[in-house]
Amino acid sequence: MNNSVIRFILGYVVGFMGLFLMLPIIVAFIYHEDVWLEYAIVAFPCLVLGVINSYFRPKKFFFFLKEGFFCTGASWVVLSVIGAIPLWLTGEIPSYVDALFEAVSGFTTTGASILPNVEALSHASLFWRSFTHLVGGMGVLVFLLTVIPLAGGDGSQFNLMKAESPGPSVGKLVPKLKNTAQMLYLIYLGLCALEIILLLIAGMTPFEAINTSIATAGTGGFGIYSSSIGGFNVACQWIVAAFMFIFGINFNFYYYILFRHARAAFRMEEVRMYSFLTAASIGIITVNTLSCSSGLFDALTKAAFQVTSIQSSTGFSTADFAVWPQTSRCVLVLLMFIGACAGSTGGGIKVSRFVLMGKAVHKELISYIHPRCVRKTIMDGKPVNHETIRSNNVFFGTFMLVFFVSVILLSFENLDFSTIFTSVIATMSNIGPGMSLVGPTGNFAFFSNFSKIVLIFDMLAGRLELFPILMLFHPTIWKDLFTTYHAKEPKNAGKVMKES
Amino acid sequence: MNNSVIRFILGYVVGFMGLFLMLPIIVAFIYHEDVWLEYAIVAFPCLVLGVINSYFRPKKFFFFLKEGFFCTGASWVVLSVIGAIPLWLTGEIPSYVDALFEAVSGFTTTGASILPNVEALSHASLFWRSFTHLVGGMGVLVFLLTVIPLAGGDGSQFNLMKAESPGPSVGKLVPKLKNTAQMLYLIYLGLCALEIILLLIAGMTPFEAINTSIATAGTGGFGIYSSSIGGFNVACQWIVAAFMFIFGINFNFYYYILFRHARAAFRMEEVRMYSFLTAASIGIITVNTLSCSSGLFDALTKAAFQVTSIQSSTGFSTADFAVWPQTSRCVLVLLMFIGACAGSTGGGIKVSRFVLMGKAVHKELISYIHPRCVRKTIMDGKPVNHETIRSNNVFFGTFMLVFFVSVILLSFENLDFSTIFTSVIATMSNIGPGMSLVGPTGNFAFFSNFSKIVLIFDMLAGRLELFPILMLFHPTIWKDLFTTYHAKEPKNAGKVMKES
Repeated sequence: MNNSVIRFILGYVVGFMGLFLMLPIIVAFIYHEDVWLEYAIVAFPCLVLGVINSYFRPKKFFFFLKEGFFCTGASWVVLSVIGAIPLWLTGEIPSYVDALFEAVSGFTTTGASILPNVEALSHASLFWRSFTHLVGGMGVLVFLLTVIPLAGGDGSQFNLMKAESPGPSVGKLVPKLKNTAQMLYLIYLGLCALEIILLLIAGMTPFEAINTSIATAGTGGFGIYSSSIGGFNVACQWIVAAFMFIFGINFNFYYYILFRHARAAFRMEEVRMYSFLTAASIGIITVNTLSCSSGLFDALTKAAFQVTSIQSSTGFSTADFAVWPQTSRCVLVLLMFIGACAGSTGGGIKVSRFVLMGKAVHKELISYIHPRCVRKTIMDGKPVNHETIRSNNVFFGTFMLVFFVSVILLSFENLDFSTIFTSVIATMSNIGPGMSLVGPTGNFAFFSNFSKIVLIFDMLAGRLELFPILMLFHPTIWKDLFTTYHAKEPKNAGKVMKES
Repeated sequence: MNNSVIRFILGYVVGFMGLFLMLPIIVAFIYHEDVWLEYAIVAFPCLVLGVINSYFRPKKFFFFLKEGFFCTGASWVVLSVIGAIPLWLTGEIPSYVDALFEAVSGFTTTGASILPNVEALSHASLFWRSFTHLVGGMGVLVFLLTVIPLAGGDGSQFNLMKAESPGPSVGKLVPKLKNTAQMLYLIYLGLCALEIILLLIAGMTPFEAINTSIATAGTGGFGIYSSSIGGFNVACQWIVAAFMFIFGINFNFYYYILFRHARAAFRMEEVRMYSFLTAASIGIITVNTLSCSSGLFDALTKAAFQVTSIQSSTGFSTADFAVWPQTSRCVLVLLMFIGACAGSTGGGIKVSRFVLMGKAVHKELISYIHPRCVRKTIMDGKPVNHETIRSNNVFFGTFMLVFFVSVILLSFENLDFSTIFTSVIATMSNIGPGMSLVGPTGNFAFFSNFSKIVLIFDMLAGRLELFPILMLFHPTIWKDLFTTYHAKEPKNAGKVMKES
């Protein structure tokens, strides 16, 4: 493997962590909190390392898919390991494994917490928790692409972006990948700013509005109160619900809207299915919970909030859905598996994968009825290539394998089945809360360190869509890493090397 | 569609039902029970219909995959609907939906019961329940192939067998399909007879031995006592456990052993994986349940019995595993999904599908590391064709879709998650008992009729591996059924038309 380019990118990630950590330091100064020191202790070495690293540019700048995947997996591990240190140093989370769980939960935009009482945290740490969602939502390597002068052509860069962006296939919105990444970040931060303004108008304080918005933008779900969003007024709840829905949509949709391709936008099958699932789930749950809420509007508000929260994989809550009737709970658990759209900041298996799988199942059924009929699978008016469908099918299988192994590993805790089952799916789909003991009123503190490490793995595997993390466990990768690198620059270095 | 050949085959199925129903009549005479009349009332018209039908042979005898699948789906529905009538007529099961549930559970070799107290049944009905397992285990259409002179060549016949035999691909053991079917039935009945002899030696009465053996052979699981196998001595328990394991193995294994291809037999990857999973699960559960049993041997006996029972999808029990520690329960639930080998009488997704999926996942991982490396997927030393892998992947997706929809439909009952979840998997994988309320000491009586119909669908869909049953709901099939049939006999009528 091209180790020097991996070192170079990881160095940049560390450097940016130093920059990011400046923000909680500023928050600490604003609120006159002592914790700035702990954040500075971590930020300073990161900055120094980052600056030194940038002087040693690699000779060969291109890299292949495996370097892209390895880089992404490794970056997220580095990110989490460093991001956890200040939370641990300040003593607000006494155990490092707990702090790591919280940091991974933040960066992967899961929002599962081991804290029984978040109000006890300093403002700086509260902000840092929320901010990790913003970094993890769109992806740190995609961010890198927007700012650093990364040579090696679109082909190399694409291999980075492919590993970090959610969904079965990654497309470029505009001819240059760098501009695509910038465009995505622009939409992302623009929507986030809009939410801040609306929440301020609806009555939140600036600190509340900023934290809530950045946690919504990344579809993370860390709240700054133990009651999550339940303590805010109904207007705030509807605004947050609307933005959770918005951030769960494929960002291509907004690109199309912005550049006057509105027809193409509304034709996107994934967005249609996502909207349909949201509406249908809200309908079912509103009817189902009518008896246990105070009137239709209350039921609708809670149902709309919880459905958008779970489906977008945010994980905010305004009601203890773990005590809702079983149908509502089952619908929510199903939504946990489905998740948001590909190309959004949300998690889960993704709506487009289910749409593709549905088409594959129908095609299979037709193949038994008319064995000689050869049909192309069409999505958004275009034929889907075989490789994408195969990869999609394998993704389902891999997801289930990781899911089952995790359930078995967690079962050593001897907890009830519902807790174990939903802990795994809530972390793998980056939701946050599950059912029973890990419901909206519970937290993940009671798990053993072993189980926490399993869940940390699940969060990372879920966010990076399995393969970049699974790859870190494959012996070939480590063998490659310790062998000398002789590859020549490929002839088509400027082009995409392996699209899928 | 070739309606006349479908009518012909369904007529034969009805005729054979008449013959099968003679057996409980004989049992009733032996035990001087009055219920022979109800069985005769159903048997007589079936026989008459069957005989009349056999006089009207169809002009065109060949049929394609869709006729094969439709025939299979329809046969099993006919089988169940008729098989339920005597249980209902005798008044032993007062509700017809309950009787249908019991009959479907029997034919699909599930073994899930709605009876709180099986001892209350007459000997004839007890025998009929067990006997449905024997019919359903190897498949009624495969049985038809062994006895009736079905023209149309191997190609047509293969389309019947493919739909009814479990597993991702069906092969012929010997050149002629009829002989293959005969060979399979010979092994099946031979092993069943061997078990009867061994159980008699171990101390069972003839009625107990016969019922237990035929229920084991079909990997069904209906017991003739409420305590299932728990009331028999340890020797009987070990014999039954061994035969449950044996009937869960791909029958090709026995064919190879019988005809001196022992090396090929022991090289079968699926059988190796199945044995490994069984051994590993027994090991884990023995250790895990050591504290709640009286000594190592007791723990081992119970673990071995329960693992072979669940993995082979039989569903007998000697212990209330629903109260075992969570790890043991999770292992059992996982085994429910995996199931037995393809080409056995067992249910579930099948070990070979998991082996293939594991290979596909590994191939996907390798494809990210070495994108240009083209690898063939090898199984049992032979390359697996693309179509099989694709079909296998789609099967997983379809299974999960049916599973999730069933869970949502059952959630209207407002029961605990574990009950709903395991009810669906216990019926889809044709196991029988699940966890919580549907555990070994419970039964399925408390479900509403709506839920029972959902579970009946799941049992049939699980036994026929989804597509033959899903096809019955596809509008094209019904449109085809009511249009005139003009197809000419294909030129390659003697060959297999569409292998996969």
